Amino acid sequence: MSQVPESDFRSIVGVFSTQVHWGDCDPAGIIFYPTYFRWMDAAAWALMESVGYGPKRMRAEHLAMPLVSADCQFLAPALHGDRCEVRSRIARFGGKSFVVAHDMVRNDATRLAHGSETRVWGRYADGPGTPMKGEAIPEAVKALFRAR
Amino acid sequence: MSQVPESDFRSIVGVFSTQVHWGDCDPAGIIFYPTYFRWMDAAAWALMESVGYGPKRMRAEHLAMPLVSADCQFLAPALHGDRCEVRSRIARFGGKSFVVAHDMVRNDATRLAHGSETRVWGRYADGPGTPMKGEAIPEAVKALFRAR
Amino acid sequence: MSQVPESDFRSIVGVFSTQVHWGDCDPAGIIFYPTYFRWMDAAAWALMESVGYGPKRMRAEHLAMPLVSADCQFLAPALHGDRCEVRSRIARFGGKSFVVAHDMVRNDATRLAHGSETRVWGRYADGPGTPMKGEAIPEAVKALFRAR
Amino acid sequence: MSQVPESDFRSIVGVFSTQVHWGDCDPAGIIFYPTYFRWMDAAAWALMESVGYGPKRMRAEHLAMPLVSADCQFLAPALHGDRCEVRSRIARFGGKSFVVAHDMVRNDATRLAHGSETRVWGRYADGPGTPMKGEAIPEAVKALFRAR
Repeated sequence: MSQVPESDFRSIVGVFSTQVHWGDCDPAGIIFYPTYFRWMDAAAWALMESVGYGPKRMRAEHLAMPLVSADCQFLAPALHGDRCEVRSRIARFGGKSFVVAHDMVRNDATRLAHGSETRVWGRYADGPGTPMKGEAIPEAVKALFRAR
Repeated sequence: MSQVPESDFRSIVGVFSTQVHWGDCDPAGIIFYPTYFRWMDAAAWALMESVGYGPKRMRAEHLAMPLVSADCQFLAPALHGDRCEVRSRIARFGGKSFVVAHDMVRNDATRLAHGSETRVWGRYADGPGTPMKGEAIPEAVKALFRAR
Repeated sequence: MSQVPESDFRSIVGVFSTQVHWGDCDPAGIIFYPTYFRWMDAAAWALMESVGYGPKRMRAEHLAMPLVSADCQFLAPALHGDRCEVRSRIARFGGKSFVVAHDMVRNDATRLAHGSETRVWGRYADGPGTPMKGEAIPEAVKALFRAR
Repeated sequence: MSQVPESDFRSIVGVFSTQVHWGDCDPAGIIFYPTYFRWMDAAAWALMESVGYGPKRMRAEHLAMPLVSADCQFLAPALHGDRCEVRSRIARFGGKSFVVAHDMVRNDATRLAHGSETRVWGRYADGPGTPMKGEAIPEAVKALFRAR
């Protein structure tokens, strides 16, 4: 059976709306950069929720998505009050790991930053808080992300 | 047997050293106030550790100290780079709850802020992440905090 | 001229929508309490914006609202994924200071927490990042908050 | 005049001591990953301070070091209470930008994570809070980092 390479698939895009708050900014008057990583994490969870894997289900099924790596490029400074969207999609599925690509865009269409997270599909040995083990990502899960 | 009222006891004082980081400050160039609450939380854990109840033991014994309330008064603005101490002590022991009082002092002796947390002595039903229930604070635990 | 005491006035109510994110929670699996103070700060700014004093205007007019004190009572634990509203109103106007009261309510109508912030109406001596000084709150500003 | 390529120079190493606090962890019971970026930022400032460019001087001279990009690889999970060091050094000096490499190591010698930040040597047009502009990194500054 011939297959499209997984890295080429077109993923559905999740949208996470957010805003730059006063406390997200630093004395330079612009966004403190770890804020983007907080946003990317929240956006990854929102993307999962958009295909039926919300926080409640993830907890009930003892699922988690620990990180392997993360990176971000900063393109334009964001200011207090800026309204933004994080647009997220699966950039690649591996066996047990996957890459989430994120675009941070201000509502005036300025692209503020883009980044990616490499995560593992993991399960807790005995419920949240206990050790996690990576698992093969189920085909059914991968299928949920295929854009139609 | 006559007893000194619990609210009058003199508690040992814990010291938690910290510093105002760039990302702890806001566009006004001073500390973003929720930072003080992050410090108070870390200082409460450090106070517990100072009497033998460190994070590892708390986890192993399924103990936690959820909050009932917290407050803080801000006296002087802290700047990026300021080195500070949080001096913490038990202000009061109740049956299941206790009050931790915190003083935030800069290393030039300026008192920056002071606050308090009311916490419950709690135990997880089935390990971290499962529901918590308040328990009577053991006399042995109270005794650990009595200043000699 | 007789006046309604300022502490009795009925303020307009601001609504700040938010969600409990994964990183807002602690190993107990519930919201880390300083998160509520981050929310209250963002909600206070949103309340100001709702009467025409958004971040851009505050910056341009060199205005800020530094804190005198803050407190919060925690009523029910919030979990990852919970969608919440912070309902904020001016509880009291003094000469240079004001009190913002906040109610944190989950979308199932559970009241999670309530708190207050006492703030000063302040102006930077020479733009953001320079020292601030309290000023008498203009009557025109107070009037903006009176519920009709 | 022949020169050693700047990317090959051996930089002095800064050490930033820190600890994993309760609120730095997530419901999985391990460190919430943006915490590492908060640490890297604080460690970069500490590295600057170790060569004489502390927060006070940076403010007085209107200097800042805005980010171009940041990345981190996560090697082992950190737990509440873990005491850690961030070991930081300049990995590369460009004309206006520089790369800071960070190693996050637990006090049992476990390497938890490593990452890097690309930053610009910037100056505020008119003091903190006003726009920044990149500047050529002074040779005198570069020299401060050369390990002897």
